[in-house]
Amino acid sequence: MKLASLKQGRDGQLLVVSRDLSRAVTADGIASTLQAALDYWAETEPALQALYQQLNQGGCTDSFAFDPAACASPLPRAYQWADGSAYVNHVELVRKARGAEIPASFWTDPLMYQGMSDGFIGPYEDIRLAEEAWGIDFEGEIAVITDDVPMGTTAEQTGSHIKLLMLVNDVSLRNLIPNELGKGFGFFQSKPASSFSPVAITPDELGDAWRDTKVHHRLRVHLNGKLFGEPDAGTDMTFNFARLVAHISFNRALCAGTIIGSGTVSNTDRSTGSCCLAERRMLEILEQGEARTPFMKFGDRVRIEMLDAQGQSIFGSIDQQVIKYEAL
Amino acid sequence: MKLASLKQGRDGQLLVVSRDLSRAVTADGIASTLQAALDYWAETEPALQALYQQLNQGGCTDSFAFDPAACASPLPRAYQWADGSAYVNHVELVRKARGAEIPASFWTDPLMYQGMSDGFIGPYEDIRLAEEAWGIDFEGEIAVITDDVPMGTTAEQTGSHIKLLMLVNDVSLRNLIPNELGKGFGFFQSKPASSFSPVAITPDELGDAWRDTKVHHRLRVHLNGKLFGEPDAGTDMTFNFARLVAHISFNRALCAGTIIGSGTVSNTDRSTGSCCLAERRMLEILEQGEARTPFMKFGDRVRIEMLDAQGQSIFGSIDQQVIKYEAL
Repeated sequence: MKLASLKQGRDGQLLVVSRDLSRAVTADGIASTLQAALDYWAETEPALQALYQQLNQGGCTDSFAFDPAACASPLPRAYQWADGSAYVNHVELVRKARGAEIPASFWTDPLMYQGMSDGFIGPYEDIRLAEEAWGIDFEGEIAVITDDVPMGTTAEQTGSHIKLLMLVNDVSLRNLIPNELGKGFGFFQSKPASSFSPVAITPDELGDAWRDTKVHHRLRVHLNGKLFGEPDAGTDMTFNFARLVAHISFNRALCAGTIIGSGTVSNTDRSTGSCCLAERRMLEILEQGEARTPFMKFGDRVRIEMLDAQGQSIFGSIDQQVIKYEAL
Repeated sequence: MKLASLKQGRDGQLLVVSRDLSRAVTADGIASTLQAALDYWAETEPALQALYQQLNQGGCTDSFAFDPAACASPLPRAYQWADGSAYVNHVELVRKARGAEIPASFWTDPLMYQGMSDGFIGPYEDIRLAEEAWGIDFEGEIAVITDDVPMGTTAEQTGSHIKLLMLVNDVSLRNLIPNELGKGFGFFQSKPASSFSPVAITPDELGDAWRDTKVHHRLRVHLNGKLFGEPDAGTDMTFNFARLVAHISFNRALCAGTIIGSGTVSNTDRSTGSCCLAERRMLEILEQGEARTPFMKFGDRVRIEMLDAQGQSIFGSIDQQVIKYEAL
């Protein structure tokens, strides 16, 4: 099943979207918003699935052309956004470029941060920021949405709580990160609003590409129309999603609609490219002595998507331009 | 005006509570939940104020006795909870006990962390945790709730966005903090669910005790029925609330219903006691060479409240017992 949120009010209007992303229908009578659907998922999910089958079979007379540009992020705002760094080779590389080694515990104890969730940008909306000097970067990631997860749920049990998947652009301000990391309390100013793919999908949409709670497809990132990276999201993911969910539900319950991210997708096979500028810059430092790829400038555009084996887009694209923000 | 949320469903039912905390009335017809009221505050606030006046004058025939134990936190879940460390002398003390000095920047650049907001415990609900060995501590704090704050709002402008105030018990697991701080990405397992006072109040309820966006009253903390601390919340607050709001709205908009905490209230005058066990333990280390006050045991109870000049409780009490959590 594929779901989206048409821009409307604060929480959007829930849409069911056809498998080929061509048609959509409002979920009126089932749930007005995606959060409302997740709050009562056991009841709403079967009804949404039935509507999805009907839509795919051409049986919805009130369907309309699906326009991803008219969509907010599937959850326009959420009660929780927790982002991991599950591709530890990426973390290792970033440290290596600074001449540091990562602690051995990083391979067994997930690195995660609590991100802002009170307002995400839409998949086609501009990224508005005041200063290029902040070091504007994208991070291509995968994310899951859970239902209610009880406190103390183990990684063996968390997989069944993963109800939906999305792609993410976790916007990062690289030049503001060192100061915030040094303070030890995590990110605020270095992690402005993120955005998610136009549609969220149930795991069954991935078929056998959803194994061991990992997504076994390439994540494709284009910068200004040129392919920048296409690492396989199922490869080199040290902590699978079940493990990330278990890390944060260790001693607290998670509310339905919790979003958990993978961190920047990255393969040790560097020929697959990168999903963020920082990683390429680190490789340049290690290989050429200095970073040559600049951070994003106003006007630059990033596109993040994932194709299935037939070359069809699974989630729709995140496609965003960086624009100078002028305070009112 | 004083508002509360009767436990009901995921988001509670909005109540208007009388100034003396004796009576309440549902806000039916104005807003069903506090978040719904905050989403349209410009419209709902005058109607809620009118109902509050009517209630205080004994003019609500459908009012009932207010029972804080039947209440959830005013926002049972929220889109954002950002907690500061505005009483920098407290941070300095904690570092001093470790033999370290705080960076000079800590006096000018607020230390804040993004906390979990997807589910708070009620003011009279038990704090359920699996292990005493985690070092269970309370932190008595003040928090504000904002309306929508545009990106780039300066500290001169943020004060008008502060719509409500609450008290907080920011539950902390001291023995899990060093590992998470060492990772640099902030807190997860060391900061389980927090709780808030039964009522949230508009700033005008404080009269001239609300000055310079600080609360000029003592915060009173009792541990197992004995007064543990009563520092003045308006004294030694290095960053006022306007400054804390501006810190996180620097390059992102804040959604209505954003909660921002002060951090543990602390006075340099140590005779006023402490609002968390960790601070007292640090003082013991500095004065006696070792910490003598233990962290909380199962069965221990903490009460956090604030009285006005006439000795009346302003927010109602947070009154919670620590109970062993058994996973299902």
